[in-house]
Amino acid sequence: MSLQLPVSTVSMQLTTLLTTIEIAATIAFAMSGLIEATRKKMDIVGVFSVTFVSAFAGGTARDVLLDRRPFFWVENTEYIWLVIAMVLAAPLMLRSRKLGLTDKVMEVADALGLGLFTISGVSVALVAGMPLVVALMLGSITAVFGGVTRDVLCNEIPKVYRDHQPYTLCTLIGGLLFIGLNHFGVSPHLSSLAGICCISGLRLLAVAYGWQIPSWPRDA
Amino acid sequence: MSLQLPVSTVSMQLTTLLTTIEIAATIAFAMSGLIEATRKKMDIVGVFSVTFVSAFAGGTARDVLLDRRPFFWVENTEYIWLVIAMVLAAPLMLRSRKLGLTDKVMEVADALGLGLFTISGVSVALVAGMPLVVALMLGSITAVFGGVTRDVLCNEIPKVYRDHQPYTLCTLIGGLLFIGLNHFGVSPHLSSLAGICCISGLRLLAVAYGWQIPSWPRDA
Amino acid sequence: MSLQLPVSTVSMQLTTLLTTIEIAATIAFAMSGLIEATRKKMDIVGVFSVTFVSAFAGGTARDVLLDRRPFFWVENTEYIWLVIAMVLAAPLMLRSRKLGLTDKVMEVADALGLGLFTISGVSVALVAGMPLVVALMLGSITAVFGGVTRDVLCNEIPKVYRDHQPYTLCTLIGGLLFIGLNHFGVSPHLSSLAGICCISGLRLLAVAYGWQIPSWPRDA
Repeated sequence: MSLQLPVSTVSMQLTTLLTTIEIAATIAFAMSGLIEATRKKMDIVGVFSVTFVSAFAGGTARDVLLDRRPFFWVENTEYIWLVIAMVLAAPLMLRSRKLGLTDKVMEVADALGLGLFTISGVSVALVAGMPLVVALMLGSITAVFGGVTRDVLCNEIPKVYRDHQPYTLCTLIGGLLFIGLNHFGVSPHLSSLAGICCISGLRLLAVAYGWQIPSWPRDA
Repeated sequence: MSLQLPVSTVSMQLTTLLTTIEIAATIAFAMSGLIEATRKKMDIVGVFSVTFVSAFAGGTARDVLLDRRPFFWVENTEYIWLVIAMVLAAPLMLRSRKLGLTDKVMEVADALGLGLFTISGVSVALVAGMPLVVALMLGSITAVFGGVTRDVLCNEIPKVYRDHQPYTLCTLIGGLLFIGLNHFGVSPHLSSLAGICCISGLRLLAVAYGWQIPSWPRDA
Repeated sequence: MSLQLPVSTVSMQLTTLLTTIEIAATIAFAMSGLIEATRKKMDIVGVFSVTFVSAFAGGTARDVLLDRRPFFWVENTEYIWLVIAMVLAAPLMLRSRKLGLTDKVMEVADALGLGLFTISGVSVALVAGMPLVVALMLGSITAVFGGVTRDVLCNEIPKVYRDHQPYTLCTLIGGLLFIGLNHFGVSPHLSSLAGICCISGLRLLAVAYGWQIPSWPRDA
């Protein structure tokens, strides 16, 4: 949930790019909460709570599991202000949604965030000495848990568990690719980029082509 | 959730007053869970679980976020016994509710608890070196998260998000007042009292006059 | 959730027995999530998430409350693979369920797990210096919280709170027995066994005879 990719050797341009993606992705994740909360006719404080949780619960869960402090949003309070600004601007944002344009942009931002947050989660877990399978899981949790919490608070079965779209699956495939490349000596910088592109790309393809995963087991 | 107000210089009378409020507030918070759990026809263990969570989840969430141990209810096990006693006395307590008298008392106790727990949460967060906006949020979480967890366990959208009453909003206003007074050099003792009175007073006014916050955005 | 019983002086046979119970119980707990998730028509990732949480959320909650790291499933990643194998084998497992045979086996495994996980939870809490009443609660949380989380994710009121079967109650009685025997100088080894047998035995009797706990209060 923060720029904890192994980017020490990375060019300034890349850092700027990653920060831009991070901000865009946080907005996309927060937006999903904002939309859901307004749909439930919440007041402004409820809308803020659900929006905040959608954006930050994933990274927070990862950090509680790894016992890391301070949390991302504690260290970077500007992200709290970003969410506050979004909630205050909700009337404008939701109206612009009706133009249909915002949805497409949000899908791309969400897909990029999925990639970035997964790989950052896997990286942090690996640095903390977690076994590979745990690191892979923590990557997915970082990317997906915000949405799960959002749906629990809105009294729904988590969308990612029941909408049969490849979402968490994309994070697992890309996380695996990242771990594999790392393992075979590819530079952290390159394997990070490959992982992010794999996750975001798969997700965008899945949305574009309407890919579905069946119920499991199929005949249940 | 515990007497972690900066009260070193405070007179004995005030300490006694604050302890009394703390006990009354814990009872009020627990009572909200007790009522909700009995409404859902739970057995005695379920009633205890929901009652306990309503009283202590807020302070526990704050302490997990700040990585503080032991928890309030671990250090003060008499509060666990208080909740056990309440659950055992539930038949009596719920009968007395029908007289209508208890509800008024509970509203006052709840409002006082809202103030006390918010300010104690903000204080603890400030002492832990949190940024102001984070301290403000942790204050509200301390006061409100028990009710959120209660409603999630009872399979409802959290009441504070959807009932459009000023509740969390009161904690934010009073927390802000406390932080502001602190900042301008007012003694912790006085600013704590001002914050608590502001929150509890606003909450009681909101209940008395039936104040409502609209959905956000208004035309959603 | 792990072999943290005070078994240093215990014979090899007992250790093997306890490990066998632990594996069987993890399977039983996971199975309850697997069944619930497939009932909700989730995809394979959702099924895995709910299955995993059913098996490990109890021990994880205990460890977050006690601030212990690494978690049981981080230290013993073979349990993650076990759950993955179960999810992949779900079509077979669910078909064999229709023969009716598996349900009985699962009930026994679940009852044994209830005993083992409770006593391991109480032991860990006592070693961590928790007060007795807190240790008792953490034992129950270790055994029961996985099921609570499973039901919250599946958008149901937790089954253990509303099905009126003695479940958590068994953990409390057996945990109390364990603490009492410990207190009166009985060897940890013997008191552990007594606690586990008490919990598992009570649970199996409750299932066999269809024991019910009434709503609380009775006339609510």
